[in-house]
Amino acid sequence: MANSAYEYVRNFEQNDSLLPATWLVVRIDGQGFTKFTAKHGFTKPNDIRALRLMNRCAKEVMECMTEIVISYGQSDEYSFVFSKDAKAYDRRASKLNTLLVSRFTSAYVFYWSEFFPDTKLQFPPAFDSRVVQYPSDRIMRDYLCWRQVDCHINNMYNTCFWTLVKGGMSNKDAMNRLEVRCQKGSCPRFWPGDIAICATTAAGPFVPSN
Amino acid sequence: MANSAYEYVRNFEQNDSLLPATWLVVRIDGQGFTKFTAKHGFTKPNDIRALRLMNRCAKEVMECMTEIVISYGQSDEYSFVFSKDAKAYDRRASKLNTLLVSRFTSAYVFYWSEFFPDTKLQFPPAFDSRVVQYPSDRIMRDYLCWRQVDCHINNMYNTCFWTLVKGGMSNKDAMNRLEVRCQKGSCPRFWPGDIAICATTAAGPFVPSN
Amino acid sequence: MANSAYEYVRNFEQNDSLLPATWLVVRIDGQGFTKFTAKHGFTKPNDIRALRLMNRCAKEVMECMTEIVISYGQSDEYSFVFSKDAKAYDRRASKLNTLLVSRFTSAYVFYWSEFFPDTKLQFPPAFDSRVVQYPSDRIMRDYLCWRQVDCHINNMYNTCFWTLVKGGMSNKDAMNRLEVRCQKGSCPRFWPGDIAICATTAAGPFVPSN
Amino acid sequence: MANSAYEYVRNFEQNDSLLPATWLVVRIDGQGFTKFTAKHGFTKPNDIRALRLMNRCAKEVMECMTEIVISYGQSDEYSFVFSKDAKAYDRRASKLNTLLVSRFTSAYVFYWSEFFPDTKLQFPPAFDSRVVQYPSDRIMRDYLCWRQVDCHINNMYNTCFWTLVKGGMSNKDAMNRLEVRCQKGSCPRFWPGDIAICATTAAGPFVPSN
Repeated sequence: MANSAYEYVRNFEQNDSLLPATWLVVRIDGQGFTKFTAKHGFTKPNDIRALRLMNRCAKEVMECMTEIVISYGQSDEYSFVFSKDAKAYDRRASKLNTLLVSRFTSAYVFYWSEFFPDTKLQFPPAFDSRVVQYPSDRIMRDYLCWRQVDCHINNMYNTCFWTLVKGGMSNKDAMNRLEVRCQKGSCPRFWPGDIAICATTAAGPFVPSN
Repeated sequence: MANSAYEYVRNFEQNDSLLPATWLVVRIDGQGFTKFTAKHGFTKPNDIRALRLMNRCAKEVMECMTEIVISYGQSDEYSFVFSKDAKAYDRRASKLNTLLVSRFTSAYVFYWSEFFPDTKLQFPPAFDSRVVQYPSDRIMRDYLCWRQVDCHINNMYNTCFWTLVKGGMSNKDAMNRLEVRCQKGSCPRFWPGDIAICATTAAGPFVPSN
Repeated sequence: MANSAYEYVRNFEQNDSLLPATWLVVRIDGQGFTKFTAKHGFTKPNDIRALRLMNRCAKEVMECMTEIVISYGQSDEYSFVFSKDAKAYDRRASKLNTLLVSRFTSAYVFYWSEFFPDTKLQFPPAFDSRVVQYPSDRIMRDYLCWRQVDCHINNMYNTCFWTLVKGGMSNKDAMNRLEVRCQKGSCPRFWPGDIAICATTAAGPFVPSN
Repeated sequence: MANSAYEYVRNFEQNDSLLPATWLVVRIDGQGFTKFTAKHGFTKPNDIRALRLMNRCAKEVMECMTEIVISYGQSDEYSFVFSKDAKAYDRRASKLNTLLVSRFTSAYVFYWSEFFPDTKLQFPPAFDSRVVQYPSDRIMRDYLCWRQVDCHINNMYNTCFWTLVKGGMSNKDAMNRLEVRCQKGSCPRFWPGDIAICATTAAGPFVPSN
């Protein structure tokens, strides 16, 4: 890097190192994927090609960043958990965050044609990313539970919704059929009873795979 | 997003909003591009295809993020300047940073074959990214001067170096030929005199284009 | 500081340096001063002894921290403006913030008896403090305008309120008399017209002094 | 607070909330206490009046901030440990930090004459303060070990040093007598053997009290 009278501008870069001995989670999330999936004819509720592509990208990331101990994804999001003693990039938040999301996105475009051999990618997609610190194993586990519960609820809702729509119901009627009343401080979008019934009418349970 | 007993983990996400009324610069930078350029047979010192691809990606980014007022790139890096009153994503550092680098990387892979029609992309490249705040117009200008000076010094050095190497000199001898003594507190890698001479022996001045 | 196997805990201290070339304002504010002023029989609406004590403390702070260029106070708060190029404590937020508020508080108790010779200090008061960065001279000026407008509005309200109360009105009636209807997005506690009238009935304009 | 066209300057205040479910330590430290103790004739190596005053101030702080679970001090420093689930001031770093150091300093001046009845306080002292987050119980314990080891090493050194000085040795000679060679990566200022011997020649072990 050149030495010059202008180099003082580097002093405006601020240190953003994360705490030591703390679980770090980087979660990436597709930007504008409602439009993206429509444009590329994704199967509803789950497009197995898209899920396999996401898994392939996560594999790429994990091969590059070896301090990731587990990763978990659903739909257009993926979480990467760095071990508590990860040292990569001195735990600088922006380095970890941007390199990871950049590698993931790069792999998404790079491997697209392998998983969508008959669908041309029409424009470059993007993901955002955030990094979060979790102090204890218990809270780290709860984070994964949070994403898993979210995944299951969304999956069940979407499975039912698209089953109804494919059965001839309008989008709006399907939404009303699945609507539930909200209770104070707890507003589930779904009831356990409905779930069981709808899941039965669906084409079978969803089995993620790679 | 699902409502559950685990949702408290969201409280660990910290606010990283940047100052209002301040210039924001996002600078992306290729990771491991020495290896990447070697693997893909980039022309030295400057590969015009690669520079045009970088410019294409910057264009893509600027079309998506309309509060960028100017961008400037060299080699495998690019700086994007957001106007002082930019409001995108509430000026959250990680949102701006990750969406920008993700879009840039995505475009890099997406448009690769357009600029390198005869070279297959062999693996997904990645960029890192940082966001910096500059309080005044003067310092903002100095930032751009800093990158410009860096670009010119690197370009002149590289032009001379590769001219010598192509003329039959070994890498090591070329490096020694261009080496200069360091002075206290100021260690230029190059002398103005050398530059002029070497530039003359080169195949002509470099003209960036798009 | 001792060298030991436990010294790694220092790595958890995070860097909180503020931006260079930016105005820094430290504003201190009395905690629970409604109770404190009642306990110590402060004259209403303004206790000239208390204001002089605040000014004395600000002087003490400015003698210790020589990069402060201006300071401005009202009631139980005081703002200290550090010059844009202030270098004290490497511009670390917590150092500047805590040393300043500590010195101010220390002076408050130390000089109390000089300004309140007949009133014994009954318990140790406390102030909180924050540090804010302002990128331009214009915004820096607006900060001071903000505090000044706040000071005048509060002073006028308080002057009127206590004039009414001293004239025999109950606290509640005085508050109702001065109450105004709130308008959407703008809820002044006072009208210009009321101000003029009440100020006239007061014992004269307030002149801060030291 | 007044409503005005200038109120936008509040948007420059940045959120500094600390992580939930993490131990918080606020450590205060006397500024320029070498000069302060000399000016006020503190007994060396330990002035029991000063230590009792520090303890009195810590008590005051703990009565005001009820989420502190333990505090530990030595010399002119004191650490306060907030429970992992402390909620005070929404865990805002600057609020916790400044209110605590302000209260401590206030108490130091307020109670001075109670512990130093024969010594007039000559100028207002100040303390700085920092807040640090510790993710696990183990590291939290190590923090306290770190301060305790530091306390003991300093105390032993000071006890020996002042014993030698009071026995007629010059400051410089005493320092040389206690000097030890540094080893790579580990530079203790003291040897266990020396400690035992010196402690015997001292006026007896130091017993902190309140």
